[in-house]
Amino acid sequence: MCKTHVLRVPKANAPFEKTMIERRDLRSNDVMIDIQFCGICHSDIHFAHNEWGNGIFPMVPGHEITGVVSEVGSDVTKFTVGDRVGVGCFVDSCGECEYCLRGDEQYCTKGVVMVFNGMGYDGEITYGGYSQKIVVKDEFVVRVPDSLDLAAASPLLCAGITTYSPLKHWNAGPGKKVAVVGMGGLGHLAVQFAHVMGAEVTVLSQTMNKQEESLEMGADHYYATSDPETFSKLAKQFDIILNTVSANLDVDAYLSLLRVDGTLVNVGAPAKPDQYSVFSLIGGRRSIAGSNVGGIRETQEMLDFAGEQGVAAKIELIRADHVDEAYERVLRSDVRYRFVIDMSTL
Amino acid sequence: MCKTHVLRVPKANAPFEKTMIERRDLRSNDVMIDIQFCGICHSDIHFAHNEWGNGIFPMVPGHEITGVVSEVGSDVTKFTVGDRVGVGCFVDSCGECEYCLRGDEQYCTKGVVMVFNGMGYDGEITYGGYSQKIVVKDEFVVRVPDSLDLAAASPLLCAGITTYSPLKHWNAGPGKKVAVVGMGGLGHLAVQFAHVMGAEVTVLSQTMNKQEESLEMGADHYYATSDPETFSKLAKQFDIILNTVSANLDVDAYLSLLRVDGTLVNVGAPAKPDQYSVFSLIGGRRSIAGSNVGGIRETQEMLDFAGEQGVAAKIELIRADHVDEAYERVLRSDVRYRFVIDMSTL
Repeated sequence: MCKTHVLRVPKANAPFEKTMIERRDLRSNDVMIDIQFCGICHSDIHFAHNEWGNGIFPMVPGHEITGVVSEVGSDVTKFTVGDRVGVGCFVDSCGECEYCLRGDEQYCTKGVVMVFNGMGYDGEITYGGYSQKIVVKDEFVVRVPDSLDLAAASPLLCAGITTYSPLKHWNAGPGKKVAVVGMGGLGHLAVQFAHVMGAEVTVLSQTMNKQEESLEMGADHYYATSDPETFSKLAKQFDIILNTVSANLDVDAYLSLLRVDGTLVNVGAPAKPDQYSVFSLIGGRRSIAGSNVGGIRETQEMLDFAGEQGVAAKIELIRADHVDEAYERVLRSDVRYRFVIDMSTL
Repeated sequence: MCKTHVLRVPKANAPFEKTMIERRDLRSNDVMIDIQFCGICHSDIHFAHNEWGNGIFPMVPGHEITGVVSEVGSDVTKFTVGDRVGVGCFVDSCGECEYCLRGDEQYCTKGVVMVFNGMGYDGEITYGGYSQKIVVKDEFVVRVPDSLDLAAASPLLCAGITTYSPLKHWNAGPGKKVAVVGMGGLGHLAVQFAHVMGAEVTVLSQTMNKQEESLEMGADHYYATSDPETFSKLAKQFDIILNTVSANLDVDAYLSLLRVDGTLVNVGAPAKPDQYSVFSLIGGRRSIAGSNVGGIRETQEMLDFAGEQGVAAKIELIRADHVDEAYERVLRSDVRYRFVIDMSTL
């Protein structure tokens, strides 16, 4: 066993405490990673506040992990000590179901093992990336291209793949019009990805505050959803609307912005149900869909693509003792665009 | 002008009255049809009862029309007198927008002209198929294969294409599992089409009452949705759920029956909004979609396919003076499976 420093919430809504936990001895196909950075995702907060009711406490959140390999198990050939790597939302899957076999491990029929607040197939509770070390099965570790800064790359492991995967799945590219709802941690990566994929990108944000930066990141257009004219101006424009907001929206209003055969893809999940009129769908063979992160192969593809295209998160790097404050600021949408914890400060 | 007998509702919810109206003089590209049969679709009732608030009265409903060409305009080459033909939900579209050009006239950006309760681009109100004659632009007339009975074919013009089109669009076929919700006018055609397309077909009906007939029509399985075990038994089974019911469903319960990447397609439209949890979508990259009839080319393709495969509606042929009673029976779901009016009795 190997001890490591972590940031831990002892119970729901409690402040973080610094403590130490043990990581398992390396199995033959395990990789030990010295974590350098971990992004703060809104879902970390949902879990730490037990908003989804399934919290396991004490909890070490964190699923946007980047670092360097410090040790490898005897059968590991894919990585060697010193490799720059990342770990995302899950660290195991059955490996046998049709979804695992086709690289969609996130939809594993047995259920993936989440990197934190999960339970391994061995019955052990998992603890995440707000930590200095982690031990992960090699198949669930991805390589971070040299061209990417490890801090700015860490949010790619969740926010990046969560937006890249549906953009690819619903064929964002040249000739397609993509709207991104919400210009936060997910949204600012969605804009960059959709742009370098070749789509025409529109940001739909509550206010005009982020217009300049959005255009710099590759958006072609920017509209405030607080302006009612936005919805009449943009009627029937988009092939894809990627909704990164986890509040309940006026779904029919957003559906009215879709072209025939267009899709509203949700990657944010409000706690309460959404409502829609079936007429909004029937009138243009429109769809409402949802998408959950991406598989391991696709995560590696996304990182390689990000490395080639220069896509990375805009981050505020924080010290480990500022995480409670960062959570409060995320809840006020007061972050441009992602907090990343510098683990050397733990 | 040419006079014709019709069944007309003078105002919302009033009983039908027999009267005469005038049809326009044939334009060079018009076809005059002696209507032999017209199906009764639930949406006729929605319109006649002004449930959607857009009724134009007096109204002559009817959009499942079959008959024989009795006269053609000077430029018509596609049809000659005596041809067996059909007319569906719409009788004109702009012909110029991208959707018309690709054969999806139902999504015409200018808006199609509905066969009844519509207004032609010339400003004239349209009157539908509860009538002995109708004049329609040749491009919106389709040919009924000789192998199909004209009475049993009439429901294909709406109920048939409404189910055929989404089954094709979402790739129903060998290796795919399709559930059909509701075994009524639309549902019984959906079952037949999905079966002859090669899919494995499950009927989800409120009760077990229609099991035997469903299996005869090509269903492989039949379950009652009133049995709560149905939803646990069939969890994550289906690629496509075609919902033909126009009542509000427990959308999350039906989404739980979909495989990863599965789609719940609505062709029935409840007046009140539906509700869903975004988690139901995200967990399996599922979609909720809607579909509206089909284009003219696709309607002809559907009729030809129905002719080859022996797909037709199971009907109760009624006299013109029984339409009020038939409406009441449709509202009680007391019809197997479609009423068709024999226009020779008008």
